[in-house]
Amino acid sequence: MKIPSLSIPRISLYYRELLSLKDTSVISSQELARLTECSAAQIRKDLAYFGQFGTPGRGYSVKFLKEELRRILGIDKNWDVALIGVGDLGSALLAYKGFKSQGFKIKYAFDNDKKKIEKVKEGIKIKDIGELKKAVKSNKISMAIVAVPQPAAQEVIDKLVSSGIKAILNFAPIRPKVSKGVEILNIDLSMELERLTYFLNKDTNQ
Amino acid sequence: MKIPSLSIPRISLYYRELLSLKDTSVISSQELARLTECSAAQIRKDLAYFGQFGTPGRGYSVKFLKEELRRILGIDKNWDVALIGVGDLGSALLAYKGFKSQGFKIKYAFDNDKKKIEKVKEGIKIKDIGELKKAVKSNKISMAIVAVPQPAAQEVIDKLVSSGIKAILNFAPIRPKVSKGVEILNIDLSMELERLTYFLNKDTNQ
Repeated sequence: MKIPSLSIPRISLYYRELLSLKDTSVISSQELARLTECSAAQIRKDLAYFGQFGTPGRGYSVKFLKEELRRILGIDKNWDVALIGVGDLGSALLAYKGFKSQGFKIKYAFDNDKKKIEKVKEGIKIKDIGELKKAVKSNKISMAIVAVPQPAAQEVIDKLVSSGIKAILNFAPIRPKVSKGVEILNIDLSMELERLTYFLNKDTNQ
Repeated sequence: MKIPSLSIPRISLYYRELLSLKDTSVISSQELARLTECSAAQIRKDLAYFGQFGTPGRGYSVKFLKEELRRILGIDKNWDVALIGVGDLGSALLAYKGFKSQGFKIKYAFDNDKKKIEKVKEGIKIKDIGELKKAVKSNKISMAIVAVPQPAAQEVIDKLVSSGIKAILNFAPIRPKVSKGVEILNIDLSMELERLTYFLNKDTNQ
């Protein structure tokens, strides 16, 4: 069964609204619809891809549905992450503690700068990028975060894919090419920021 | 003239490709189309909103077009930024040096935690959120970055808007409501990450 890719961010949204509910033990799809601004039919359809979680005419147990959505989203597990590129952004990501609550743990960090290799940052010893393939193969690394400069990004991503990495969070401002079966998420901070500066600057453009 | 909102990320994209060109002084819309995977007609249309930058039949001067796109995107200026919320994410953003190359400078930081107020982080003294309005009004603050927990986010955003802030980069996982004339950009890291964990976990769901 093919699950529409837009169902997943909606499931994240349902989960988030359930998290913020206090003193509610059962919720109907109509109530959840009101909270999330999705339709009740859409909610029932999204959930039905994964199983039968509610009682018709009664609704969903909030506690049970929360657990099931955590399981579906894979955030009930821990995922070991490798960080590639320990520059300004990479260092900020290494120091960022918010990944933990999502079950992500940056356990390995790689760079190609000899001045950085073997240095310890945030308790992690930075390794030579040349050791990437070996490290991915011999450890249980699920995911990689790419925080290298633009010119190096596609080569690093190719290396990750050929090492067997299946999920990549890419901060380099490129539109990378990956083979099927690899999920890549691109967050282009500079492009996002340029939308804001464009807006701030707009009146001078016309 | 109404400029389509999708033109702006494309202009960012054209700019980025021009930046990576070496030893090219003139480029045709066809060549730029090949590099960016947009159509040449689209490129000409996007640029025409802002002026006449090329010579028909000859192309665009790379140097001139780069300068013009920087000006259009507003990244030729400096923008003073206020950070709201100095928790895990806020601290990482405060330490992140990459904003500078976009012309952003975090000059003010606010929190409501008495233990943080008056402390100095990355050279910036953290102020009481109660002083936000006064600070925005008496300084030239263009933009705010919101890195507060979800329950506080809408209230903080309302406060920013009523203080006269016109552009907001919001990292809190909410879909905030803002009045017209304010540009808000939402980056929901946890929702993005859940798409990756969902993917990594997918085989166990079915």
